[in-house]
Amino acid sequence: MSQPSDIDIARAASKKPIMEIGAGLGVPAESLQPYGHDKAKVSAEFIKGLEDRPDGRLILVTAINPTPAGEGKTTTTVGLGDGLNRIGKKAAICLREPSLGPCFGMKGGAAGGGRAQVVPMEDINLHFTGDFHAITSAHNLLSAMIDNHIYWGNGLGIDQRRIVWRRVLDMNDRALRQVTTSLGGVANGFPAEAGFDITVASEIMAILCLAKDAGDLERRLGDIVVAYTRDKAPITCRDIKADGAMTVLLAQALQPNLVQTLENNPAFIHGGPFANIAHGCNSVMATRTALKLADYVVTEAGFGADLGAEKFFDIKCRKAGLKPAAAVIVATVRALKMNGGVAKADLGVENVAAVEKGCANLARHIENVQGFGIPAIVAINRFYTDTDGELEAVQAQVAALGSEAVVCEHWAKGSEGTEELAKKVMALAESGKADFKPLYPDEMPLFEKIDTICKKIYRAGAAHADKKIRDQLTAWEKEGYGNLPVCMAKTQYSFSTDPNLRGAPEGFEIPVREVRLAAGAGFIVAICGEIMTMPGLPRVPSAESIRMDEEGLVQGLF
Amino acid sequence: MSQPSDIDIARAASKKPIMEIGAGLGVPAESLQPYGHDKAKVSAEFIKGLEDRPDGRLILVTAINPTPAGEGKTTTTVGLGDGLNRIGKKAAICLREPSLGPCFGMKGGAAGGGRAQVVPMEDINLHFTGDFHAITSAHNLLSAMIDNHIYWGNGLGIDQRRIVWRRVLDMNDRALRQVTTSLGGVANGFPAEAGFDITVASEIMAILCLAKDAGDLERRLGDIVVAYTRDKAPITCRDIKADGAMTVLLAQALQPNLVQTLENNPAFIHGGPFANIAHGCNSVMATRTALKLADYVVTEAGFGADLGAEKFFDIKCRKAGLKPAAAVIVATVRALKMNGGVAKADLGVENVAAVEKGCANLARHIENVQGFGIPAIVAINRFYTDTDGELEAVQAQVAALGSEAVVCEHWAKGSEGTEELAKKVMALAESGKADFKPLYPDEMPLFEKIDTICKKIYRAGAAHADKKIRDQLTAWEKEGYGNLPVCMAKTQYSFSTDPNLRGAPEGFEIPVREVRLAAGAGFIVAICGEIMTMPGLPRVPSAESIRMDEEGLVQGLF
Repeated sequence: MSQPSDIDIARAASKKPIMEIGAGLGVPAESLQPYGHDKAKVSAEFIKGLEDRPDGRLILVTAINPTPAGEGKTTTTVGLGDGLNRIGKKAAICLREPSLGPCFGMKGGAAGGGRAQVVPMEDINLHFTGDFHAITSAHNLLSAMIDNHIYWGNGLGIDQRRIVWRRVLDMNDRALRQVTTSLGGVANGFPAEAGFDITVASEIMAILCLAKDAGDLERRLGDIVVAYTRDKAPITCRDIKADGAMTVLLAQALQPNLVQTLENNPAFIHGGPFANIAHGCNSVMATRTALKLADYVVTEAGFGADLGAEKFFDIKCRKAGLKPAAAVIVATVRALKMNGGVAKADLGVENVAAVEKGCANLARHIENVQGFGIPAIVAINRFYTDTDGELEAVQAQVAALGSEAVVCEHWAKGSEGTEELAKKVMALAESGKADFKPLYPDEMPLFEKIDTICKKIYRAGAAHADKKIRDQLTAWEKEGYGNLPVCMAKTQYSFSTDPNLRGAPEGFEIPVREVRLAAGAGFIVAICGEIMTMPGLPRVPSAESIRMDEEGLVQGLF
Repeated sequence: MSQPSDIDIARAASKKPIMEIGAGLGVPAESLQPYGHDKAKVSAEFIKGLEDRPDGRLILVTAINPTPAGEGKTTTTVGLGDGLNRIGKKAAICLREPSLGPCFGMKGGAAGGGRAQVVPMEDINLHFTGDFHAITSAHNLLSAMIDNHIYWGNGLGIDQRRIVWRRVLDMNDRALRQVTTSLGGVANGFPAEAGFDITVASEIMAILCLAKDAGDLERRLGDIVVAYTRDKAPITCRDIKADGAMTVLLAQALQPNLVQTLENNPAFIHGGPFANIAHGCNSVMATRTALKLADYVVTEAGFGADLGAEKFFDIKCRKAGLKPAAAVIVATVRALKMNGGVAKADLGVENVAAVEKGCANLARHIENVQGFGIPAIVAINRFYTDTDGELEAVQAQVAALGSEAVVCEHWAKGSEGTEELAKKVMALAESGKADFKPLYPDEMPLFEKIDTICKKIYRAGAAHADKKIRDQLTAWEKEGYGNLPVCMAKTQYSFSTDPNLRGAPEGFEIPVREVRLAAGAGFIVAICGEIMTMPGLPRVPSAESIRMDEEGLVQGLF
């Protein structure tokens, strides 16, 4: 099943002017801020005017625990959106924006694949509409203002050892993970330990993605805790008086980006928070706007459903008042085999027994999603190595659970390959079965929230945290942060914290190594394992072979 | 002479759609990449197709040694452009892009003033079209790739003590001037001394502004010297294999930005290199494009004519093959008085004698500009405190030198206030008097070039440099860099290196403290005094009062 490369398909796309895509959604040209002829931002003012309109149906695309290559959630989101349009529905998709830094490490972009892509692919993976640059600027302005406050007398009494606000760059640069700043004498300030994260790990990224409008954005920015005094009293961004200027820097970035799929259907690509230390979903602004403009909105959440869907439900939907109508769980035969115990090298060989065994992983994700009150269907993202026997085995297993698994071929065929999925998703979304409820109530104590996720979603025996961490959670409860949801940071490859423990393990412990307060984003991060917030470049970075060719086309990026 | 604030005037502007401004220049809509409805980039492909067209007349706007508030070069450039359009000529202006970082320190933007502004003012001063963010990304990608090369084995044998490539951010952040990176253990690399400059100080900014096209950009990026081996052999960006990816990051940024003046005339705003350690002119791409599209192109150079005009002629015009037709030297009565010895507090009081005395400064700038073979005229940028006696004194002094001084009121009246200037500039540009020649030939030894600028332009007794610096210059000559022009970095307030030595001093010494090689930009920087490449924020940064108001308008930025 050979076909041209993703980039060749993307370049051969017959794009429509973005104003035409906007018009199809009912957005007038003056409410679209174009970025070139194929990208635009929908104006905040226009969005404000949509408030009284009814919402379309929201469909979440999530996945089983993946292989390192991923299961094709983005590709399936694109394919399903195109499929719904193909069967005559007014559907839009909502995706996350890819990060620039990693493009220079490993080859490969993040805009779907095959015949299920969003375009313009190069722009989306490079500077796009500048959102991440704006986040970098806003983040580092706050950093500079904190140090500047201390330099000019430290009126707020910041304990320089307790500054918890780092700096960010959208670049894979391990040298910046841990640095000492303000060396060189009096004029440069007080020497301090500091460090940089990659921009997608910034709390501002999470804030931008959860903010409902510019006012909410400013309030959340103001709430960010940046440091503590010697008495451990929190100092906020508002105390530093940076919230107004940061809001100004982010005003354009807050407006959702509109592009199109290869089949000229509307795609909102906006925001891209980490799926470990943050919630891993595209922006609330984009999702809510899409729901006002389309009858069906297909969106994705990061990683597998244990992390991505749980956060989508318990953080994004809870906080934004969203009520999903259905969920699609993406599975591949390869990942099911891996979850069934097959080594990576043997994934290309037919193994029906392993597929059946691996379905235990899928079954638990179905059960978990249904536990949120959301009806679920399985999309099998077909690979050319999959055999009929393997595909039938998945379908039989899923049918036995009272759900349904549909084989999809959007990578090879575009919307023709998701027509059946689209029809079934539509029926499910219209069935009235959805009755969304988050996993835990706001008022549950913080550690109990962590424990609840570990037991009910991961099926752990228990969550474990030492006294220092429990004391910290209690202290935050006293400071008024007890009603926040919890954002779990752990490996995406297993329900447990051991990436090699595949399938559907039970009874393991989840050790909580560290907890962090994201007061602006509005969640407590529970870190359970090694989490890297500033990647490095590999031995031979892809940047070495990226270049513009004679025709002005980018080579080596994909 | 009261009038609304700059920002109120800018917001009341009746902007035309940018596609219409482009059409007026003969740029078809498909060759304009819009950024919103009031900003656009002119496509590289379209620009390539202009090569065979004749050039319009190039007019430089420069100034006397200024007061700290500046003499209004940008305002006069805008006013003259509007004036030329007013008298029926097809004129465009070319300006530098302002830097984002300083906006959060001191209040006030850089887009002209009064009735002589470019719009949209907020966008131009904030993210604009993302050019500076692209430069930041490209610069820091190279930084990351250098450290990554060392991390993975250092095959090129880089001496880690001799890395001369720093990092950049478009932010005033003194804490980053001098840092130690790669702390924290093996996985983070080898600890090293490092630091950040503000983005406008990046050599990539200078390169972007001197590059003729994408191919030239890539070649120049490759030429950047980033480090030396233990044997002091240079390591270039090309050796690190970063030049291709950096070119890709800069491809959009290389295309000139088109906006408009308050009077709906075309304005190219593109690139903004420092005027001390770099050449301080807008991009060659923008200037050459404007010359192909308009009959008159008015552009500015940084600081006073001793720095700005000299670099414009000896670096930009020499390297880009530009032949200016005329120069306008901007003077204010206030600055002439200051050059005549009046203290800042007394500048508002009439003092004809001081004005006459200060004209010595103006006279030398006229002479210097004429020395490049360029006919010069003086524009007096009128302030409401100026008296008729003071204005007449300037005009008489300039007339005695065989030139002419025209009183301009563009700040208060827009193009009505520059009509006379426009007519006279047009006549001068058409007179055929221009016969451009740079100050020194390419083949002159490097120190002799420095000495020539000091003696002929500044009227110093001599340039002084110790043996180490002279040896360095000789070493660069041996390495093949001897044919490069010199970029002087010194105070803008005096012909000398003493900012308090006003007027037209003679016979002083110019001490060269340091020399730097900008092999990609294509010049040698001679640093004569304290040059700050990473500003700090003041005690009360303007950021503290910047915010969005209820109507979505930016408050506190201007």
